Amino acid sequence: MVAVSASPRTLRLVHAQARGAALVARLRRQRPLFLCVVAHTDTLAIPGLSAAGATPALRHLTAAADAEALQLGRARCLPGVPRNPEGPVGPVVITYAALQLADIPCLVVDAGLGHRPAAPVISLGSAPGRSILGGHALDDAHGLFHAGRVLGHQLAAAAPYLVVGESVPAGTTTALALMLALGLPAAGRVSSSFARAPHDLKLRVAQRALARSGLSLPAGDPLAAAEAVGDPMQPVVAGIAYAALARVPVVLAGGTMMVAVAALLDRLLWREGRRLDQLPLAIATTPWVVEDPQADFVGLLATVGEVPALVAPLDFAASRHAALRGYESFLVKEGVGAGGAAVAAALATGAEAPELLAAIERHYELVAAEAGWG
Amino acid sequence: MVAVSASPRTLRLVHAQARGAALVARLRRQRPLFLCVVAHTDTLAIPGLSAAGATPALRHLTAAADAEALQLGRARCLPGVPRNPEGPVGPVVITYAALQLADIPCLVVDAGLGHRPAAPVISLGSAPGRSILGGHALDDAHGLFHAGRVLGHQLAAAAPYLVVGESVPAGTTTALALMLALGLPAAGRVSSSFARAPHDLKLRVAQRALARSGLSLPAGDPLAAAEAVGDPMQPVVAGIAYAALARVPVVLAGGTMMVAVAALLDRLLWREGRRLDQLPLAIATTPWVVEDPQADFVGLLATVGEVPALVAPLDFAASRHAALRGYESFLVKEGVGAGGAAVAAALATGAEAPELLAAIERHYELVAAEAGWG
Repeated sequence: MVAVSASPRTLRLVHAQARGAALVARLRRQRPLFLCVVAHTDTLAIPGLSAAGATPALRHLTAAADAEALQLGRARCLPGVPRNPEGPVGPVVITYAALQLADIPCLVVDAGLGHRPAAPVISLGSAPGRSILGGHALDDAHGLFHAGRVLGHQLAAAAPYLVVGESVPAGTTTALALMLALGLPAAGRVSSSFARAPHDLKLRVAQRALARSGLSLPAGDPLAAAEAVGDPMQPVVAGIAYAALARVPVVLAGGTMMVAVAALLDRLLWREGRRLDQLPLAIATTPWVVEDPQADFVGLLATVGEVPALVAPLDFAASRHAALRGYESFLVKEGVGAGGAAVAAALATGAEAPELLAAIERHYELVAAEAGWG
Repeated sequence: MVAVSASPRTLRLVHAQARGAALVARLRRQRPLFLCVVAHTDTLAIPGLSAAGATPALRHLTAAADAEALQLGRARCLPGVPRNPEGPVGPVVITYAALQLADIPCLVVDAGLGHRPAAPVISLGSAPGRSILGGHALDDAHGLFHAGRVLGHQLAAAAPYLVVGESVPAGTTTALALMLALGLPAAGRVSSSFARAPHDLKLRVAQRALARSGLSLPAGDPLAAAEAVGDPMQPVVAGIAYAALARVPVVLAGGTMMVAVAALLDRLLWREGRRLDQLPLAIATTPWVVEDPQADFVGLLATVGEVPALVAPLDFAASRHAALRGYESFLVKEGVGAGGAAVAAALATGAEAPELLAAIERHYELVAAEAGWG
């Protein structure tokens, strides 16, 4: 029986609902394997693109800190966990609490970090992404895709389904550039880690990257597009999903960055005469991404295809912590697969929004107390 | 129902049989997660210690090549897969074929490699081991143990049980040194990758390492012993098993190197007032380790405790390939968790020795044809 409600207490479906409901029925009461693919892109050095970290210096550590905090509960390379400059705590507290609640195992994939995390990571031997402004962001997107496939093949044999999240500060800008390269009408529609989305800046950066890359649009080779203007996470997640979907369902856990990955996967499948919407794939994200008045997650996803979108039962309006209530003002929206982890926990345990919030608050309180936050 | 036979066609028990039979009953028809923990130790540079590779130069690549071949079927950093200088093919062909036969997922853990494999590996950020002759082989065995625990905790949530193998050329010498440091009567009892075991050389190396280390014997701190005269694989596997055993059974896949790990784990548990033989732990290995006239696997294991030993249903006497028949002359005995992978495949599928051999021969033929052997 599929109980999918319109109430924010429970899981919601906002795109390709019929296929989503069938998938939800298949995933219920299963414990997936959660992967978080983390990477650095030097695109982050462009001022004003990202607020995924309390300061510019700490922002360069966010992906590594998330890798640590996902496994240890708190980061090692910075105090507590990453935070937004305006106060809210980073989404890794949501992911960690949700995975703990449902006893879901978690592995981190290093697709190209600048800083080595003090926790185990699956390494592909790959470098951080260069700034997309140079028009040649990655050394070998085909190699990253292939490494993702090798990994996805193994991991799909170890779980009833995979949930794949990301932590890539500045990753919505590389997502925008990739989607434009693939011919998607993405301008002004991606999410942002700022309350006030810098759409103009992102578009200028993406357009300059595309011009510099010499790609003719839409790009005929989707991996060449990622190599030119993307980030290392994109081909790795596409490769993991590509291989894993041969065997189990895959939930891409994220907002518009995962729409870009779905678009990349779609273009790769097209070249083989296959179609994305015939595979057991969904995107899962948070209500703050879906309802963000400054982005258009659902509209953007619709340009990719009939990929179901699952919205996590997360409601922080009544939280006793300002650091969590800030999500309801769209100060933070998503990251580290938070929405997908909450969806997976809800599917595995039947937990609803109040139970998830309680678990997240308990974990936040531990982290905040240790870090000495007010 | 437990069907454990004395025939080499099927799985055998050679130590702590009653506990072994109960564990076998629990593991039957389950698909575990197979881990291979690989590491380099500069101890390998001492001439005459290891034949785990066709030449001294290639031997330095064996652990990395095994990491590649376990996931891709063949190595990237050398042709085919590692081989013994006397002709037999390395044990990774057994492991790969057995895991494929039973559809068992596999992950490789890099505990400290000198060469970066061209395949995904779980990295702990750790360095290769130094030669134990210096008496200070590892930088931080406690850190390696802790990283193993973090990983074991996650992976145990993803599988009904874990099988943990190793690839550490020269690892029986570091095993000998660690067991002597822990007070075990291991001299002259460890296995060897040579047909004629260099027991005297190994003992001289281990004793010189112990003298240089300044450890007082038996060592009071088991991890300090590994740090002084061990290799990086030992504390990592001990950490994985320590954490995973809180939740699922663990099978250490290897010969006397895994006896050393079991001894390390035993000493760590003792300090907490716990006992190894109360946990669902076994060692699984090959018949060639157990029957090796130049080593004493069972006697050595008995000095550690009542840890069941499972012997894989592997019989290469009738193989059509000399590269496999050589195992029956003890030219190669074990490695890359070959015995444990074969045990796990037998438990999962009911496969007996002829079926395993057929799968191994098929895989060997593919590798040999591609590599242009014979």
